[in-house]
Amino acid sequence: MDERQIVDLAEAGAAAGLTAAEVAVLRDMNALIEAAGEGLRFADSAARVAMQQPREVRRFDTAQIRWRAPVRRPSKIVCLALNNSANADRILQGPKHPAPFIKAANALAGHEEAIVIKQSYGRCHPEPELAAVIGRRAKEIVAAHAYEYVFGYTIHNDITSPSMRIEDTFHYRSITPAKGDPTRIEYVDTWTTYPGRYKGSDTFSPMGPWLVTRDEIPDPHALAVTCLHRGKLVTQDNTANLSNKLPEVLAFLSQYMTFLPGDVLSLGTAVKQGASDARPIQNVELNKGGPISVVIERIGTLTSQVQLC
Amino acid sequence: MDERQIVDLAEAGAAAGLTAAEVAVLRDMNALIEAAGEGLRFADSAARVAMQQPREVRRFDTAQIRWRAPVRRPSKIVCLALNNSANADRILQGPKHPAPFIKAANALAGHEEAIVIKQSYGRCHPEPELAAVIGRRAKEIVAAHAYEYVFGYTIHNDITSPSMRIEDTFHYRSITPAKGDPTRIEYVDTWTTYPGRYKGSDTFSPMGPWLVTRDEIPDPHALAVTCLHRGKLVTQDNTANLSNKLPEVLAFLSQYMTFLPGDVLSLGTAVKQGASDARPIQNVELNKGGPISVVIERIGTLTSQVQLC
Repeated sequence: MDERQIVDLAEAGAAAGLTAAEVAVLRDMNALIEAAGEGLRFADSAARVAMQQPREVRRFDTAQIRWRAPVRRPSKIVCLALNNSANADRILQGPKHPAPFIKAANALAGHEEAIVIKQSYGRCHPEPELAAVIGRRAKEIVAAHAYEYVFGYTIHNDITSPSMRIEDTFHYRSITPAKGDPTRIEYVDTWTTYPGRYKGSDTFSPMGPWLVTRDEIPDPHALAVTCLHRGKLVTQDNTANLSNKLPEVLAFLSQYMTFLPGDVLSLGTAVKQGASDARPIQNVELNKGGPISVVIERIGTLTSQVQLC
Repeated sequence: MDERQIVDLAEAGAAAGLTAAEVAVLRDMNALIEAAGEGLRFADSAARVAMQQPREVRRFDTAQIRWRAPVRRPSKIVCLALNNSANADRILQGPKHPAPFIKAANALAGHEEAIVIKQSYGRCHPEPELAAVIGRRAKEIVAAHAYEYVFGYTIHNDITSPSMRIEDTFHYRSITPAKGDPTRIEYVDTWTTYPGRYKGSDTFSPMGPWLVTRDEIPDPHALAVTCLHRGKLVTQDNTANLSNKLPEVLAFLSQYMTFLPGDVLSLGTAVKQGASDARPIQNVELNKGGPISVVIERIGTLTSQVQLC
């Protein structure tokens, strides 16, 4: 089948003789994810009809459809901070374990949709990331079984505003129980940053276009990741360079937070500069406009326009 | 009606002669919120029948039901950092505007449900907060109309682990465009904290028991807030002391993130110590067990057990 064409799986499912309830599963990505293996069997039947009886199923040109993020209302998007071996020498102090932060569905944008950047946001830069979409409720799982909880993989551009990060950092005296006498308190000089705005603003999580099922990607830590700004190569990295790998990340985080089907786990930024004339990701000013693209091997290309206002 | 008794609104709605579709709205809090004024009219009809024809509608003892959080799967829970005038003298540097962070639905726990604290979490303390539940999609709204976007109010205990906060703080050299020559970069000594674990772990957002509609609370910034640990008074504050008030908070944040019906906006911790022998909130070690209660005038009492493991 032509890769620039797609079919409506639900329509193909009806042509394949699936029941109305089975077709309904193919109409909604969250229903498909929750239906797990059964849902994928429906999808396989639908895809087979689309391949074998092409005249029965309409084709749509990928250039002419409107893309949405592959999941529309995840209960959470969990992202990792500073999870790339290229960062290691810049970290003076910090955890070795995955350090997560949460973005919400308001941040999602589809392929070719605009990243909206207001003047008040200050500087904004892209962060190209491989993201796993969770397939099964995951709570206190072990790393050896982690992949069983993954439905598939997609591309996430974790847009970040260092200007808002600086604004939303507090330097303050935190109150803590006194050493030696915990019934008393003492003050400790502290910096704390709150990522609600600088990571979580609307359209700060372009995602997609494709959600590739797990079976198509035997090793998610062997994928080339490149980022292009206005067609010029910015970074060239590989998911092999992520410090904490998916099985350990999901096992660790699921000790703290329960993941639900359709949740997104974004595995950290692919930051390495590939070419000698490439720029660090933090130097890509989206404030000068787009487009910005993230390409991940075996998944595809996520392109975003930039709307300045 | 006895305040220790409640009725099933859907059952009362059926007795009031509502249609099946109208009764369905009363069965699901999100459907009720999204139905807005119409939903509240269904609820009023149902409540009237429950009051006037008490023998037609069963009563349930509040001591014998299992409580859930009043909203079950909000698209986000947006919380504010350091938003109390009692904090002001401890802040050496920080924004005057609301500084938000996001928690997800996994953190929710109902009234009387356990806050689960694992030994690996380190110290954990309560943060008593007034929370608004959003009634209408809010994007780029103005403060003068902010209350129109509020469905009602509830109680939120924003459980916090300073131990995990310290663990998940990075001290690193951030990359930034060089002053004077933005095509080059320079390194800036930076602290950044990621709140995914220390704010967002499972059961770190006990909420409820009541969701009081907006019309019942003419001024949400005139409510006494107290916190009790094992029956002993910890803090005694008033929502009048919150630095940024609800209309300005919602107007400001909605410039960055779109709020959806059922989303929660938690307005910051009521931290003032009321009695001379009261302890700072940061000195209440939930690691020694519960219960912990937050009482907000006109709303009620949210009590959580603590499960150490």
